[in-house]
Amino acid sequence: MTHREPLRPVLYDESRDLVRLLDQRKLPGEETWLELATADGVAEAIKTLAVRGAPAIGVAAAYGVAVEARRGAGPAQLRRVAAMLARARPTAINLAWAVKRISARLDHGAAALLAEAHAIRDEDEAACRRMGALGAPLLPRGATVLTHCNAGALATAGYGTALGVIRAAREAGNPVTVLADETRPFFQGARLTAWELDRDGIPVTVLTDGMAGWLMQRGEIQCVVVGADRIAANGDVANKIGTYGLAVLAAHHRLPFYVAAPWSTVDLETATGAGIPIEERPSEEVVLIGAQRIAPVGVPARYPAFDVTPGELVSAIVTERGVVRAPYPEGLRAIAGGG
Amino acid sequence: MTHREPLRPVLYDESRDLVRLLDQRKLPGEETWLELATADGVAEAIKTLAVRGAPAIGVAAAYGVAVEARRGAGPAQLRRVAAMLARARPTAINLAWAVKRISARLDHGAAALLAEAHAIRDEDEAACRRMGALGAPLLPRGATVLTHCNAGALATAGYGTALGVIRAAREAGNPVTVLADETRPFFQGARLTAWELDRDGIPVTVLTDGMAGWLMQRGEIQCVVVGADRIAANGDVANKIGTYGLAVLAAHHRLPFYVAAPWSTVDLETATGAGIPIEERPSEEVVLIGAQRIAPVGVPARYPAFDVTPGELVSAIVTERGVVRAPYPEGLRAIAGGG
Repeated sequence: MTHREPLRPVLYDESRDLVRLLDQRKLPGEETWLELATADGVAEAIKTLAVRGAPAIGVAAAYGVAVEARRGAGPAQLRRVAAMLARARPTAINLAWAVKRISARLDHGAAALLAEAHAIRDEDEAACRRMGALGAPLLPRGATVLTHCNAGALATAGYGTALGVIRAAREAGNPVTVLADETRPFFQGARLTAWELDRDGIPVTVLTDGMAGWLMQRGEIQCVVVGADRIAANGDVANKIGTYGLAVLAAHHRLPFYVAAPWSTVDLETATGAGIPIEERPSEEVVLIGAQRIAPVGVPARYPAFDVTPGELVSAIVTERGVVRAPYPEGLRAIAGGG
Repeated sequence: MTHREPLRPVLYDESRDLVRLLDQRKLPGEETWLELATADGVAEAIKTLAVRGAPAIGVAAAYGVAVEARRGAGPAQLRRVAAMLARARPTAINLAWAVKRISARLDHGAAALLAEAHAIRDEDEAACRRMGALGAPLLPRGATVLTHCNAGALATAGYGTALGVIRAAREAGNPVTVLADETRPFFQGARLTAWELDRDGIPVTVLTDGMAGWLMQRGEIQCVVVGADRIAANGDVANKIGTYGLAVLAAHHRLPFYVAAPWSTVDLETATGAGIPIEERPSEEVVLIGAQRIAPVGVPARYPAFDVTPGELVSAIVTERGVVRAPYPEGLRAIAGGG
């Protein structure tokens, strides 16, 4: 089944002044849109993963500031709102980046704030398309590409980062196919990546998170492409838990391991991955799947939501400003002035 | 909560001639025992994972032959029954081994067959205790030990292989603690390993399968111990899907990676891992969790149930005949005559 309307998970309804978010907790079973009239509602949607993905939560937070301005909040209140939104999740730097960007206009009035939020949204989608164009040539012809979590249209304003590279390769006539790690505990791969690729007619098969090594050993994977939540100045990449293990496996099998992320994900003020805060989420989100409990009552579970992949394991970082290869400190600095 | 009765998941009720199996599909929520009067019932329990774990399915199959003999089947019919049971699952060699062993007595009458099945059961539990004694000294004092799937009492006649080593270390006063990979798609780690260790008062924390790399990078894991479904003559180890990835990660972090398995798991007639048949199970077992579908309808999933870890990545193989280290062809041959 192929739909052709582009998928855009974060929208703003100007006639009713509502932030509209495709509820990613309900996919693929239900396509439900949340309609939020307050920044608190947006923050709650970010915390509970109704909207997730580093670029997408940045866009949502910008609209969260805009909706409060359009409903009459003044600069002082907006400043508190912005600080509250920036704290909703700690790891993705895009959230802080978007809030900081819109916060530079808190004194300019509601119309200017909404225009800035729209600009953040539009620029993110344009960046994804540019990353697609730059990254697509990296994929071998007919490759089976492994991805982790969802770095797709659902994680961005539209089109996607890692999945944008895959979409662009397909649009350029390269018949790549995709293996999607299911990505426990939230199943972003099985639920979201599989849904949005299937919607676009791109062949996708789901794996459990323990299968990648075996398929690499058997020669069934040609490269790995993932997104990022934050990239430190030295090229260390924070991304969904499980990414680091894939990078080690890719290196062991001499397969390329690519990261695609907009420039807003690059945090030159954080020197190395050791400085990136890693969110720990509740044990219950691991042991409860819907109403089903998969572990005995009283047995704890760990849930670090992200991990850090050292730059040495990354073959290239694809941004809208260019494709950067090691040494990353120099490569990232070189394009820092552009854009 | 600490119980002290040893856990034995495969029993035979002589007064009623029933094979009794603790239904591992229902744990940890329910402790339900299946009572099976036919070999067909036992084969179905093996295929549907009501009983699983290489040694445990061998014991169950032996009782499956015995129950038919006790209910009046003659040698010719028992031969067909034995062949049928041996085909129930392809990867674990213990199944074929146990069926072959009991098949040597098909002409000796029902009492001899039941005695042989009991012997297989008792020897497996004794082997586990011996592996525990031999393997326990390998675990560093106070180590956090990572395990995958369930290689415990539930996977054997009792006590366990990998978990037997952990139990023996604890009994010897080494306060090791355990991290259990949840082990998708069947959740043997979250459901079974967590349940049986918690029952014995051994501290256990559940991880999703993508977390091990990150915790190794952070120094939170000191060694890995897993079981095996078949060990080739060169030391290649077939075990639950995901094991190979852990072995690569352990090598990358210079952590010991141990395999514990009874001698019945060693298949000297299979030269290398390439000769081990890997069971592929249905896609639906990945995408359906209870009634909940985690991927869009129509999107396929892979389910190779096992993978093969090359002997080079294995620090030692613990059997009841001794602890073997590389080079494995020589080491395994050296103890092949013993026992």
